[in-house]
Amino acid sequence: MICNHLPSAAQSGMARIVSTSLIFNAHQEVDLDRPPAAAKTSNRASRLAESLSHLLHLHVEAPPRTKLLQSHWNPYSDDQDQKHSTPTYSPKEVIAEKWREIHGHCSSEWDCLLDPLHPWLRREIVKYGEFAQATYDAFDFDSFSEYCGSSRYGRDRLFEKLGLTRNGYTVKKYIYAMSHIDMPNWLERSHLVDTTWSKDSNWMGYVALSDDEETRRIGRRDIVVAWRGTVAPSEWYEDMQRKLEPYGQGDAKVEHGFLGIYTGKNESTRYNKCSASEQVMKEVTRLVQWYREKGEEVSLTITGHSLGGALALLNAYEAASTIPNLTVSVISFGAPRVGNIAFRDELHRLGVKTLRVVVKQDIVPRMPGLVLNESLQKFDEVTGTLDWVYTHCGAELKLDVRSSPFLKRGFNLPGFHSLETYLHLVDGFLDSSTTFRSDARRDIALVNKACDMLVDELRIPHFWYQLENKGLVRNAHGRWVKPTRDPEDIPSGSSEQDVHALSLGTQTQDHDVLETQYVI
Amino acid sequence: MICNHLPSAAQSGMARIVSTSLIFNAHQEVDLDRPPAAAKTSNRASRLAESLSHLLHLHVEAPPRTKLLQSHWNPYSDDQDQKHSTPTYSPKEVIAEKWREIHGHCSSEWDCLLDPLHPWLRREIVKYGEFAQATYDAFDFDSFSEYCGSSRYGRDRLFEKLGLTRNGYTVKKYIYAMSHIDMPNWLERSHLVDTTWSKDSNWMGYVALSDDEETRRIGRRDIVVAWRGTVAPSEWYEDMQRKLEPYGQGDAKVEHGFLGIYTGKNESTRYNKCSASEQVMKEVTRLVQWYREKGEEVSLTITGHSLGGALALLNAYEAASTIPNLTVSVISFGAPRVGNIAFRDELHRLGVKTLRVVVKQDIVPRMPGLVLNESLQKFDEVTGTLDWVYTHCGAELKLDVRSSPFLKRGFNLPGFHSLETYLHLVDGFLDSSTTFRSDARRDIALVNKACDMLVDELRIPHFWYQLENKGLVRNAHGRWVKPTRDPEDIPSGSSEQDVHALSLGTQTQDHDVLETQYVI
Repeated sequence: MICNHLPSAAQSGMARIVSTSLIFNAHQEVDLDRPPAAAKTSNRASRLAESLSHLLHLHVEAPPRTKLLQSHWNPYSDDQDQKHSTPTYSPKEVIAEKWREIHGHCSSEWDCLLDPLHPWLRREIVKYGEFAQATYDAFDFDSFSEYCGSSRYGRDRLFEKLGLTRNGYTVKKYIYAMSHIDMPNWLERSHLVDTTWSKDSNWMGYVALSDDEETRRIGRRDIVVAWRGTVAPSEWYEDMQRKLEPYGQGDAKVEHGFLGIYTGKNESTRYNKCSASEQVMKEVTRLVQWYREKGEEVSLTITGHSLGGALALLNAYEAASTIPNLTVSVISFGAPRVGNIAFRDELHRLGVKTLRVVVKQDIVPRMPGLVLNESLQKFDEVTGTLDWVYTHCGAELKLDVRSSPFLKRGFNLPGFHSLETYLHLVDGFLDSSTTFRSDARRDIALVNKACDMLVDELRIPHFWYQLENKGLVRNAHGRWVKPTRDPEDIPSGSSEQDVHALSLGTQTQDHDVLETQYVI
Repeated sequence: MICNHLPSAAQSGMARIVSTSLIFNAHQEVDLDRPPAAAKTSNRASRLAESLSHLLHLHVEAPPRTKLLQSHWNPYSDDQDQKHSTPTYSPKEVIAEKWREIHGHCSSEWDCLLDPLHPWLRREIVKYGEFAQATYDAFDFDSFSEYCGSSRYGRDRLFEKLGLTRNGYTVKKYIYAMSHIDMPNWLERSHLVDTTWSKDSNWMGYVALSDDEETRRIGRRDIVVAWRGTVAPSEWYEDMQRKLEPYGQGDAKVEHGFLGIYTGKNESTRYNKCSASEQVMKEVTRLVQWYREKGEEVSLTITGHSLGGALALLNAYEAASTIPNLTVSVISFGAPRVGNIAFRDELHRLGVKTLRVVVKQDIVPRMPGLVLNESLQKFDEVTGTLDWVYTHCGAELKLDVRSSPFLKRGFNLPGFHSLETYLHLVDGFLDSSTTFRSDARRDIALVNKACDMLVDELRIPHFWYQLENKGLVRNAHGRWVKPTRDPEDIPSGSSEQDVHALSLGTQTQDHDVLETQYVI
């Protein structure tokens, strides 16, 4: 069942004038890591974006502060300590018997679980969302770092460093992707002329695997692929050529830029002799074979936010096409449209189940085709089969910024698009007619990690996720220096890429499989 | 001897159009902690300020990168480790025999020591500059902190926390000042409605004292008063009424706003039942008496940057007026003009020696009276005695941003005004005709603590002086919370203000003196 509940944009008159690149530039006003030059272009973009936002009802009016905020979190009340002592996670339930329904693999797909949102499903959505969030939290954005664009932590320490070990998964492989010619601003590059790692590639996500205990709880061995998005949508969006390109079977077409990131490779690079697609498919194939040979049931759950959600769909399509009888689900957050209707139908035919989590005020899920597409979909009978119309796939869980008493109102594109905002709203979602649930436990402070969305009463600084002294430390001589990375956190071309030399079938020769044997 | 080497502003034609408040608004483009609203006004201000900066030759053209940078610090060279292992401080010399000359207390004042700059004097200037810098580094700017506007560290830990114990001084007292009605934006205030500390007062500096070892090295017991300035000049400047007010003897007048900060008090406040003036004078008087009774020679050295340099002059005037035969020196950095010519003459009569360290491209030392004053001073014979003309006092050490190969060129008002930029340039200054000395040792990375002045080749992030996660820490339950301050770092109204109840003379009743007895 396909959901396209997006409001139609009969407001096209003025909206057509505004290019999407301008809309996204608006985020730069609050993007504190942008150089001043970026700010100079923001005023015009901001005004245009704000006009458009009113047309599209993205502007959230300031409401009277609800009582919920007071009951939830009154920083001056005596029970603040008590509030701070509440566990941040809902209790784990054994979902082994129900995991297929939770992942949409039943006749009704997610229909009966979304409104009201089943607590087991809510918990799983948050879990996968945290896997996607990890790709941001660990990413090295420092353009003065020689490892800019890599993960700050090696795969063996990623979850430990980010406090995610409690989810019961282990990272098996890191995925790297190349910059694509049509998305020139997408890649994070080091300013340094000479870097031991790579100027061509970025860390783009990872493959993880449920451990034995989590496997028992969730009823199958779960392989997770988490794709990194971009924090600043403008970086890839404003330069993107909205051009469809054939992918897979029949008339299926997907956005040219997304596909370029997923399939780009180059023999002269260190990390992308194999494409992201080849890296992830080799590892997933290996893991599926390994556990099937052991007689276990295996699932593949692919997650990602923003651009990462788009890559998740491409990845799901490829996995379902090439690995027979694999249960493939996608849980995406704030993802743009990816392909045409034939692509959607192909995913449907292959049995890929997609749950798109969407914040109503976030503009990215309306891309590409903000104006054209949404108008055309009103005449779906006529135009729906045209192969140049972008369409969303799967079920939608629609969230509303206004449901949370903790979030600021107003106009805040990067805030509405932030994955932590999404996870906060999922955590508080009961059903589409109720406001924030009062027993939500997820730490509200997380929302402001990289945006300014929390009301001042909460006393949480904005954009607080930052390194002490931007990573500089004082050495024994009193000088502030950038410490060299721990060897285990340095990306290693050989260990990630030596799989290239090995054929898919020869598992006994595969270093990673041997390692897996040891770990299991 | 009075120096007024400031270039005359015959460029007044256009400059008159531009108000100083607009000039200072330009800093907001790179002030990352300003809310987006501030950025909106910055474009016009920026353009005007840039025009003015060209007129006043504040714009530093990009030069060919000198060889010095390559020889000093090539991040790709093999000797980087060696560079990072160099001590950051020049060796200490015993200056006991020469301290009066170094502090300007000789017939030629500083004339024979400034150009070329005597290495002993250079070292002392940096030492006092670091005392002034400590007032910024420890200041709590966090408007969500219940102690916003205080020092993050108690006075017993200040130097230890900031790595300044090697200077051989101990903090004796913290000074607090009240907001002044004519400088409404000057005070840092907590956003919190209910705070246990103070909404009216800010930590404004401290009194420190040389220990026995340092006292032997420098030839006398040195009392230091360090005054805090403001990081963003606009905050106090754009609202300042440039109005002179009588102060002290005769026709002496000083700027109304500075005097208000120095002398403001209110019985209903917690920290300013005594004014800053009363607090500092009581402590200085006590220390002078104490050490004179022990037969020691005592000096008072007052330092401050920006607004802090202005307060230093007011403080020096009061100290020299009220404590007979005290050797009083002021070493100020980027300080604005403070008073009229009669005030300057009064300081001269009292024997206060003032060394003003000034960066040529910094606009603050040209305030108040950027246009009017500098034009008038060309006709000094006629106008110099008018009591409404601001004038600088003392000797000037003039630094030039262009002398350092490590600093970015272009237009950067907050960068040119930053105290760390000053200290870097002092450290590299040989004489007015030579570029940066090659054996300068001060850590260059410090320059970018709170601005963006270092060339990219150095790989030092801009604005790097920041707390990990803005002070949030993860508690045992996984929640990100603002930890409560250590009790010893919490400002205590009683311990700082109980001196109010005690008369100046009754030293045996004075808690602080008893404490001093124990320490000595």
